[in-house]
Amino acid sequence: MSKKLSQLGEFGVIDRIRKIAGHSRSVMEGIGDDAAVVSSSEGKDLLLTTDMLLEGVHFTKDMPARGIGHKAMACSISDIAAMGGIPKYAVVSLGVSRRCEWDFVKQIYEGMKKTARKFDVAIVGGDTVRSPGVIINVALVGEVARKKAVLRRGAKVGDLIFVSGPLGGSLKSGRHLRFVPRVAEAQYLVKHFNPTAMIDISDGLAADLGHILEESRVGAVIYENKIPRHPDADSRGALYYGEDFELIVTVSPRKAEGLRDSRKSKFKFWPIGEITARRGCLQFVDEKGRIKTLSLKGYTHF
Amino acid sequence: MSKKLSQLGEFGVIDRIRKIAGHSRSVMEGIGDDAAVVSSSEGKDLLLTTDMLLEGVHFTKDMPARGIGHKAMACSISDIAAMGGIPKYAVVSLGVSRRCEWDFVKQIYEGMKKTARKFDVAIVGGDTVRSPGVIINVALVGEVARKKAVLRRGAKVGDLIFVSGPLGGSLKSGRHLRFVPRVAEAQYLVKHFNPTAMIDISDGLAADLGHILEESRVGAVIYENKIPRHPDADSRGALYYGEDFELIVTVSPRKAEGLRDSRKSKFKFWPIGEITARRGCLQFVDEKGRIKTLSLKGYTHF
Repeated sequence: MSKKLSQLGEFGVIDRIRKIAGHSRSVMEGIGDDAAVVSSSEGKDLLLTTDMLLEGVHFTKDMPARGIGHKAMACSISDIAAMGGIPKYAVVSLGVSRRCEWDFVKQIYEGMKKTARKFDVAIVGGDTVRSPGVIINVALVGEVARKKAVLRRGAKVGDLIFVSGPLGGSLKSGRHLRFVPRVAEAQYLVKHFNPTAMIDISDGLAADLGHILEESRVGAVIYENKIPRHPDADSRGALYYGEDFELIVTVSPRKAEGLRDSRKSKFKFWPIGEITARRGCLQFVDEKGRIKTLSLKGYTHF
Repeated sequence: MSKKLSQLGEFGVIDRIRKIAGHSRSVMEGIGDDAAVVSSSEGKDLLLTTDMLLEGVHFTKDMPARGIGHKAMACSISDIAAMGGIPKYAVVSLGVSRRCEWDFVKQIYEGMKKTARKFDVAIVGGDTVRSPGVIINVALVGEVARKKAVLRRGAKVGDLIFVSGPLGGSLKSGRHLRFVPRVAEAQYLVKHFNPTAMIDISDGLAADLGHILEESRVGAVIYENKIPRHPDADSRGALYYGEDFELIVTVSPRKAEGLRDSRKSKFKFWPIGEITARRGCLQFVDEKGRIKTLSLKGYTHF
């Protein structure tokens, strides 16, 4: 008998899908990173990403519609940022009910458009379909210098781990509707600090750092007293709650010196720990110095 | 008070969205054609398209899952074909319920993958989310020689109108789950016949020819006895039912000679009428020679 998706879990499903999707020569990195990297004709590679937001799962209709539109666009922009790329063109599929009010759709689009414009992204096309609940899918094309995409799989033992901002409480506080994708920060990192791996935090620090560990075949130790938190978030929230869309980045010890020193740095980055050789093992040193091994799980979709 | 979408109609909604999305310099053709054309770095332009299929709207769960997957991929491939382009990279967002069986998802993916492979399209990334019903969004990137995309807006008075295959009855017959996107046919047209406008039939011959008329600011006359029909379709079906995914193409009278002559033509195309100066007016000459003016409406989504 066929298994239900809930029995396989999100990553079980993704692994299986990855196997079916297979590989193609022109594709340098496929399913499993923040965005796919494909070889373009010239000095640039293309980045492709797609994100779907659903009413009742990712947002509710009583949330501000402009914020929902912002989030739909900003999630995809964040994916491109996390690859070290520049977002360029978006196509938007929208599912809405016939009974839906135009004002609601209009505000979603205005929210998307405002955020797109802020990051110089052109919304170039779309599809509209009838649907019982609201569905927004943003597919985004970005660019990155040839072979310069920052993947999840390059972290080395001894690298330092940084995050780009305070974590936790994004959903409860409403920050998930107004976060700023870290395009400028990522560009700054790429330009000056040669990041070895990068990801944006959508499922939570533990889960998303976990992806780096898994893809890079390394481990990590992180320190509770170094992890920046929002005042409304506790340690658990900073570790396990998603939707912060801050970057996790690893850099070599030599490069880390400059990044640690916020007087020299244009943006502030928080060092939270180091990459270790204990493959797949995420250790957490709490404020009392006790060491725990963390689960790599965060929000799972099934 | 804000209007409901059903009061605005599909094209009312699209027009309003187009206004919000606005224009950007690097975008040559935006929302409103089969795919968007954006300038790439070298001798090629990029084509972008996105299509969303929903359970209960575009398919039902009792249809063969591989066919659903095929359709999801083939719709987007057809959009790229209709621009005269070559489909290259796809990203797929999939919404499924926790209670959904893996076999169903697997077969959808296998259907997509098989069709993708057939057309040399790499599925390079995706997103999976929890959803009450099945949702499939395929966003596709294609390529076309610089400034060579075939738009909807180039049809000239006197041009001949051709279709690439028999029409009608696609949904009832199940052909909508196994149609072949006309990439090879479109490439052949582009190479030898300099098409002035092109579109694929998703909403029906009258509606999709109507898009060419509207964008090209021309009219047309078509002849009932020249429109190729599937044996299971009547004239009404051939005109108003969608999902055939055959091409409608306009070519100059001079070029049309070669295309008419199927001995010289690698693929068969059916001449169905001519472009006229009566802007926005689609005339239909029935089998008895009576002239009617047709509504440009086909399937509308709201």
